[in-house]
Order: sequence, then structure tokens, then C-alpha cells
Amino acid sequence: MDGGGIAISGRQLSTHAKLVLPLQHPQRSLHAQRGHDTRRQALASPPEAEPLVASTSGQDNRRAVGEEIRSDFPILHQMVHGDKQLIYFDNGATSQKPKQVLEALRAYNEGYNANVHRGVHYLAAKATSAFEEAREKIARLVNARSSREIVFTSNGTAALNLVAHSWGRSNLRPGDEVIVSVAEHHSNIVPWQMTCQATGATLRVVPLTKDTQEVDMQAFKDMLSEKTKIVALVYVSNMLGSVLDTDYIAEETRKVGAKLLLDCSQAVPNMPLDVQSLGADWIAATGHKFCGPTGIGFLWGRSEVLEQMPPYLGGGEMIEHVYLDHSTYAPPPSRFEPGTPPIAEAIGMGAAADYISDLGLENIHSYEQEMGGYLYEKLSAVPGLTIYGPPPEKRGSPLCSFNVEGVHATDLSTFLDFEGIAVRSGHHCTQPLHHHLGINASARASPYIYNTKGEVDTFVDELRSVLKFLK
Amino acid sequence: MDGGGIAISGRQLSTHAKLVLPLQHPQRSLHAQRGHDTRRQALASPPEAEPLVASTSGQDNRRAVGEEIRSDFPILHQMVHGDKQLIYFDNGATSQKPKQVLEALRAYNEGYNANVHRGVHYLAAKATSAFEEAREKIARLVNARSSREIVFTSNGTAALNLVAHSWGRSNLRPGDEVIVSVAEHHSNIVPWQMTCQATGATLRVVPLTKDTQEVDMQAFKDMLSEKTKIVALVYVSNMLGSVLDTDYIAEETRKVGAKLLLDCSQAVPNMPLDVQSLGADWIAATGHKFCGPTGIGFLWGRSEVLEQMPPYLGGGEMIEHVYLDHSTYAPPPSRFEPGTPPIAEAIGMGAAADYISDLGLENIHSYEQEMGGYLYEKLSAVPGLTIYGPPPEKRGSPLCSFNVEGVHATDLSTFLDFEGIAVRSGHHCTQPLHHHLGINASARASPYIYNTKGEVDTFVDELRSVLKFLK
Repeated sequence: MDGGGIAISGRQLSTHAKLVLPLQHPQRSLHAQRGHDTRRQALASPPEAEPLVASTSGQDNRRAVGEEIRSDFPILHQMVHGDKQLIYFDNGATSQKPKQVLEALRAYNEGYNANVHRGVHYLAAKATSAFEEAREKIARLVNARSSREIVFTSNGTAALNLVAHSWGRSNLRPGDEVIVSVAEHHSNIVPWQMTCQATGATLRVVPLTKDTQEVDMQAFKDMLSEKTKIVALVYVSNMLGSVLDTDYIAEETRKVGAKLLLDCSQAVPNMPLDVQSLGADWIAATGHKFCGPTGIGFLWGRSEVLEQMPPYLGGGEMIEHVYLDHSTYAPPPSRFEPGTPPIAEAIGMGAAADYISDLGLENIHSYEQEMGGYLYEKLSAVPGLTIYGPPPEKRGSPLCSFNVEGVHATDLSTFLDFEGIAVRSGHHCTQPLHHHLGINASARASPYIYNTKGEVDTFVDELRSVLKFLK
Repeated sequence: MDGGGIAISGRQLSTHAKLVLPLQHPQRSLHAQRGHDTRRQALASPPEAEPLVASTSGQDNRRAVGEEIRSDFPILHQMVHGDKQLIYFDNGATSQKPKQVLEALRAYNEGYNANVHRGVHYLAAKATSAFEEAREKIARLVNARSSREIVFTSNGTAALNLVAHSWGRSNLRPGDEVIVSVAEHHSNIVPWQMTCQATGATLRVVPLTKDTQEVDMQAFKDMLSEKTKIVALVYVSNMLGSVLDTDYIAEETRKVGAKLLLDCSQAVPNMPLDVQSLGADWIAATGHKFCGPTGIGFLWGRSEVLEQMPPYLGGGEMIEHVYLDHSTYAPPPSRFEPGTPPIAEAIGMGAAADYISDLGLENIHSYEQEMGGYLYEKLSAVPGLTIYGPPPEKRGSPLCSFNVEGVHATDLSTFLDFEGIAVRSGHHCTQPLHHHLGINASARASPYIYNTKGEVDTFVDELRSVLKFLK
């Protein structure tokens, strides 16, 4: 096997081959300093109301992110479990929706709900116009050349499956290779396993670096060859927070003539994206992680590439002509949008794109870098706690996944929940990455634009209390 | 070719075989009586405000359908094009959503928005509970044995594709036959064309009866053989309004050991359904046609059948374990729900199921039979007007598709829109049916539970005015 890493032939995918990864479990010690354990008693008696104040340091040149935009999010202003102010740190799973998005949904549902494209009447025309305007908004968000490069899908997973099923099944042959990394979300592994099984292509898996758990660029380069037909990688990891060096990846991928697909579900919410300079052929993302509704995601694809792709789901809207013996298909993006689309959801996602664009993605990224760095630093100071992934300055989102020696992640999230703090525990749909790290589960705190350093303080204080109680 | 109708081998599906259907264009004359043309002048000058009063005849034993529930639908109470009271007769394309559904969406989005299944925190538990409760509501709506028989999909088309891709591609072989009818929506033709192309199975198409344009039962019976592996038919036609005799279809299908899939997107909104007595293996439906949100549909499948079906889209939630070399999959329904599901949308569809169940599907059906009969009768009296499909007593929904001699359907819908009346024109995603009827397009008026005989009167009066103007 050249280039290190792992190769699984499509023909072997249903067998249980024993795999040995070149990396050992990188048990980085983060037991830097013992922190204060002053809030243990909060578990027994309710804490005093925690004022949610934003840090004032370094905020001077920032516009309306953090504390200033909390009033846009009605859901944040609630007590849970009786009298605990909610601290929502589960944004890696889904973000909250601002009033602007809720209003866009309400306006459609109460004012101009109608099916799109095929109606000439007043409501249908208005709905079609808003739906296509939403496509324009997404195109602007990622700087696509045209809104015709934006395919609406039901979520990010559907966007990745679209590439695997449509492009993959019509282009891959036995002997061809598909490259993913061990850090992929299941949605960027399972579709490729299925497509490799169906086509006989081989799935190859890039390992991570030992020190910072980033995609190992040397291993990646060694794995590339003229056999490589597609590289499918996550831009910002939903578990490690790491950001891919897309310039390098795109350049090397281009050299061997392969296609590049980037899973951007965790990138779109947190950083500026410019598909015209990114070097990818497709990016996939979901709406509900950047303040949009559930039920909607999108695939951006370079026009020339989308035009070459066959449809993989059949139905209304995606056709040109249907005869009993054959059908001809509409051009992209309609070709990939069968049936009544998620209309309200697309309009809501468009409003979400406007919302984060108005805040400014540079601005958001910079705010998150500071809040994420602060979170990382405070967590690092907790005894026995291991944070996975690269240091904060190399992260694309402010999330931290971690474990504490001798404590199960689920116990952590359960006890934190009693205090009103929402963090996730589990494998975060990255079982291979967890296996790679030698763990079954981790806890993940993932703040977003409306979270504050004050909430980070409360979270870490409560975590220390929980640990004191559990140990 | 035995049994009449049309057979297209999967290998021939990409060729342009010339097909001759056994039916001629059934140009039924409905020029029964010349009606009054009193409102022609309304096109030039705005009509006086039209009071929307329900007919009072025969309404005594009915509970809260029609006029009585209009206050639940904020969207109906608006003027369009300035001063025209909206009459929404495009429910075959999408229905409106009552306050109860809008409130369910708002409650989730503003109160407990979180991702489902994998979180232990307060909001995630609440969202998961509401999401699974929605599945129970859909199960109750169609009388499924268990909510585990309900798979949430992004729309009705996705539910049909799920069967074609998962069951179809893993069960069909060259020589096998798939039976559909010429009246199918594109969403129940194109996926089968694709699956037949991929597997080498043959697609056979049942014609309609000459007199009432219903599925020709003799032709169907003659077409069935041990080669038949699946019968996929529309229960209530979105163009003809016709209802399938499912007892007969199910019995004959069972005799040859084939599976039965029913497209119920137009049936669920309009009539009681009991999947335990229906005799089908699957039913597919969409939420937005029965007062639910866009972005959500469902597939009901008999447990034993769902359990035998492989997944066809990969990602999070649908897995049991993911390793780099293979994955194992969750039991149904999760196996078929990859990625973050349409959470708000499922909850909204659950509320819609409650809404129509509370009104009573028998009650709805009976109200629609009367209103649909009234619409049919009044339209039949318009000179030169042809209504397609069976007589009103044989219809499963109150819609009427029609053409008027010498007038294009699009002109009709456009001029009706100027008067605030929303009807659809086009092929209604049934091009083969339109070819079969010898037409390119039709106009379709499709009232629903909140529409009234008063609106039917206004619609037909305006139609007469438009025709006088156009002719």
C-alpha cells in the first residue's frame, strides 16, 4: 500500500477486515493547572442567577456579535429544569434561529404559501420569486458565480449523497480510488462506502498527524495518484474543530486530475467562504447549523461539473419531458430537486444567509476565535481533561471536544444539563475518528455567535463542580 | 404483449420507441347548458366585494369544516392584486396551514429547537420527544400498527424514490415486471424508469377506461403474471380525482405474489386511510398537501418489508456502527433517515395530522364530496368545457381538471388570477396522462376543507366572464 493510511477495496467493504492505523491514540496531557472548584455546591442548591455578560476586552472594532445579538434569539431567554438559565453550547449539532429567520418563515406560511415554479397565480409567483431569491442569497454567501450552481437539498447529508450517488456511480470504476480522511462525519464516509461497493472503486483513508490531529498532508500527498478520482474531505471538523488547508489540498488534487468535494457544514456557519477561490468542485452544507431552519441544506457545484451529472432521484420538477418509455431532464439545479422542494425552509435559509452575512463572516470568525481560544484555555486548566484537535489558533470553529480521566462523557453532559448547560456527548457521528483516538465517546461544547465569555466562565465553573461531585 | 397496455423493457428506456395507447382521446361533451355570463365586466372594473358565504344546504350534521374553520387559516383573509379577495383553489399543489400547525412550528423554533436522538440535554430531550410523538401521530392518522412503520422523508417524491431505489434495486432482475398506470404523477414513473434501467426489469403501464378514465381493471388483471414483482399506483389522481379500487388491486396483486405501493399524496388529505386493511405494502405521502409544512413527507411500510430493505442514502442517524471498511445499519425507520431530519417539519406535520383527524376524515370526505360535486356540476354547465376523469361520486378529492375549447389553460389561470382566484394550469406533473388524453395542458381547480360553495360560485362566475372576454 503506497502512501500510508488505509485502503479498502469496494469488494472488501462488506467484510470485517482488521485495520491498523499508523497513528496511536494521541493522549495529550492538558492537566496544566488545577482550577478553582468553588461551585460544587451548585449541584445541591440552585446557583444565583448568572449574569450573562460579554467580555469587554478587544470588542471595540466588532459589530453586534455575542451579547449584542442575543435579543434576536428568543429561545436563549429561558429557564430550564425550573430555574436554570439555559446556556446553549450544542451549536455543533444545531444552531438557534434569530427572529429574522422566524419572521421569514412566518411571512411565507401566513402570507404567500404556495407551490413554486408551475403556478401563474399571485401566491405562486410570490413564492417562486422568494424561493429563487433564497438561492441567490446562498450564492452570494459562498460567492458562487451563479445561483444556478446552488442545489437545494434536504440537509447536508443529502448534498454529500448527491455527489456520491450521481457523480460517483457514473464515474467510478474498479481500480479507481476515493480519498477521505479518518476525521470525516459519517455522512462523508457511508455514502462513499456504498458507492465503492456499487462500483468496485477503492476507498482510501488519510490518517491524522500525531501532534495536532490534523489531516496528515504528507500521507495525503503520498496517497494521491492517477488512480485518485475524487477527494472528499471535511473543511472544518465537527469533533476536532480543525480547518483543512484547502489551498494545498486543492492544488495537489488538481495535479492528479481528481475532483474535490468539501463537507462545509461546520465551515459555512463560522468563516467566510469563496467557492471561486477555494479550488473545490463541490461544497456541501446544511442550513440549520448557520441559523436556518431544519429540513434544508445545499450543494454548490461548479456549473461544468453539475451539467455532467445524471439525476439520481426522479419525480416532478427535475424533468424536462416524461414519456412512458423515457424521460429527459431539466438542467441543474432543477435536475437534482425532485418533487415539491422545502420551500419555506429554503426561504428561511436565505434569511439566515442574510443574517450571518450582515453580521459579517470575518467578524463572526474573529469573535469565535477569541471566544474559542478562551474556552480552550479555561478547559485546558481543568485537571485530568483532554481536549482533542489542534490548538485554538488552528481551529475553524470555537468548539471543544474533550474527555476527563475516569469520567464518562455522558455523565458529564447529563450533570451539566441539570445546571441548564446544553453540551453534547457521544461519538458526534464520527465513530472512526473516535476509534482512531482510542475513545468511544467525548463531550463537546460548541458555542456560537450569540454565546459569550461569561457563559464560558459559567460552563467551566459548573464543569469543575460536576467533576468534584463525580470523582 | 399480453394484457394490453404498454411494456417498456428497461434496456429500451433510453430509446424513443413510438407507443400507441389503446385509448383514444376521450373528448366527453359537457356542454350541458349555457350558463349566465353576467360578470364579464368584472375584468374591466373590479367586482364588488364577494361575500364568502358557505352554502347552508345539507350542512346540519357536519362539524366545523368549510366556513367554520376559515379563521384557522390566516392566509385566506387577504386581498391580492390590490382589492381582490383571494380564492385559493390550488390545494392539489399545496394546502394552507392552520394556526395550530404554525403554532407547533413556532413552539419548536422559539422554545425547544435542538437536534434529536443524540443529545441528553433538556432541549434535545424535548425535541426528540416531540419528533417521535409526531411519528406516533402519523401512525395514528393511517392506523399503522406501530410508529416504527413510519419513515420521515423530505417529501412524497422522496418516499416513492426510497422504495424504487432501496427495494427496487435490490429485488428486481431482468425479466421482472413493474406495473404503473398511465395516470401516475412523474414521481411514480421516473423513479421506476430509472430502476428498470438499472436492473433490466420491464416497466408496464396500465391504460385507463374509455368512459370514466379510471385504471382499467381488466387490462390490469391481464397484465399481472408471475413476472410482476411490484405494482405502484396512485390512490387518488392529482389530475383526474379518480380513486383506485384498492380492494381489487390488492387482492389481484397478492395472488401473483407481488408487492403493492400506493402513492397517497392526494388521498391522505381527503379521506380516511387504514393501512392495516388497505392491502398495500407501502404508502407514500407528503405533508404539505394535508395542512403540514413543506420539506416533509412520509413512507409507511409494513414492518416485515421495511426490515428487508437495504439503506440507499448514507450518513448519521441511519447507522449502527461505522468502521472504515464497513458499516452496519440501524433498524427501520432510522435506517432510512440519514442526517439531521426535518425536525420542525415533522412536528408540524404531526400537528397537521391532529388537525385533520380532529375534523374527522369521514367528515372532510363527505364535505368535499358535496363541494366537489357542486363544482363539477357548475363547471359542466359552462359551454365548451371538458372535465377530465370520472363523475363526482367516483372521486376521492374535490378537484376538477378541465379545458375549454379554443382557450389555452394558461390564459384561463392567468385571467382568473387577475380576479384573485388561484387555480393551476399545466401538466400537473402528469405529462404521460396529458399525452394519453391528447392534450398538452389543463386548468385545475382544487378546493379543500376551508373552501366553500360560495367560492365555487364566484369561481365559476369569473370563469364565465373570462371566457366571454377571451373568446
